[in-house]
Parts: sequence; structure tokens; C-alpha cells
Amino acid sequence: MSAIANTPRPPYYAVIFTSVLSNDTTAYNETAERMMVLAAQQAGFLGVETARGEIGMTVSYWRDLESIKAWREQAEHREARRLGRERWYSAYCLRIARVERDYQGP
Amino acid sequence: MSAIANTPRPPYYAVIFTSVLSNDTTAYNETAERMMVLAAQQAGFLGVETARGEIGMTVSYWRDLESIKAWREQAEHREARRLGRERWYSAYCLRIARVERDYQGP
Repeated sequence: MSAIANTPRPPYYAVIFTSVLSNDTTAYNETAERMMVLAAQQAGFLGVETARGEIGMTVSYWRDLESIKAWREQAEHREARRLGRERWYSAYCLRIARVERDYQGP
Repeated sequence: MSAIANTPRPPYYAVIFTSVLSNDTTAYNETAERMMVLAAQQAGFLGVETARGEIGMTVSYWRDLESIKAWREQAEHREARRLGRERWYSAYCLRIARVERDYQGP
């Protein structure tokens, strides 16, 4: 899970999730790992990249907006997001973006 | 620099840069910090978010494709990218995406 995602040629979609953790991270790591596994099982999932320093960043890649919507409505994911809002995150931002070009290197 | 970017209402653009460092990171940290300072001085720059775990992730936000192109052509940035390709990165992916929606919380 901790590698550069091997995505297809654009266009596709990125969900850019940036977060700051609160002091209460009970069950956070397990849930985050579980969500990575679950997301990878969804239709239209293309990959995910994640890193955490002072802020956490997770970018997941999707075939289209419909796939993102279906994942947003997945029951266990909804419950995890509720816990995120109520417990784990002191701040977060989620951005939905259409990837138009990409370049690999070196 | 280590916070969630306070971007305006969409649409705007994101440059999603994901990387794996090589064993030679001579002058990498100083250059990365310098690029953050320089980017913030560019016309059309809207913010940047960065984190490093097993992979590094930096997402910078821009007003439009023209701002991204101008930053790409900035001389000191070109030289840093050359060093990145030749020395610092064993792999990287750069994606240019149009942010269509965003949500803040909690």
C-alpha cells in the first residue's frame, strides 16, 4: 500500500484527503488500514497513495465520479467517516479533482 | 508550511507529486524547503501540502494551468527537478488535476 500508484492513462479522478489528527486516535490506525483494503475492493478503484508527517495525506484514484460516489455511500466507510469527524480529526479537507495529465520518472 | 492549504472555491488546479527517495539525498532537504518558499512567490500559487512516510507526497495548488506552466519554467525550479531526476528520486509520479469540489471539516 505504501508505493506510488500505478494508474492508467488520464483522464481519471483523484480524491485528495488531507488531515490533522486530534489527541484521540483510538482505533484510528486499524480503521485507516481497513479502509485501504475496502477501497481497493470497490469498482472503479485505481490506486491509493498515503503519507503522514505533521499532516496526513491520502490520495485515492478512481475511474469516474460514479465510483467515488459509490465508495462514499459504502456503509462501513460512512461509519469510519463519522468517527473521523467526531473523534480523530481536528481538521481535514477533501478535494475531488480530475487528473488531466501525468508524468513518471526518472 | 505543514498545514492544510486554505484554498479558494473550486475550480483550481492541483499538482500531485509522489516520490520515492534514492540513497543519495545530498542537499535534498534544503532544496525542497527552498522550492516551497519559491513556489509560494509565484503568481497563481494557492497553497501547498506535504508529508513524507515511506513515500513523499506534495500537493501544490494553482489558479490555472498557466501558473503551473510558469512555475515549471522557473530557472531554479528546473535545476532542482534535474537534480531530482538524476540524484534524489528512485521513482516519482507527477499528476496535474483540476479540483472540482472540496469539503472542509469537521
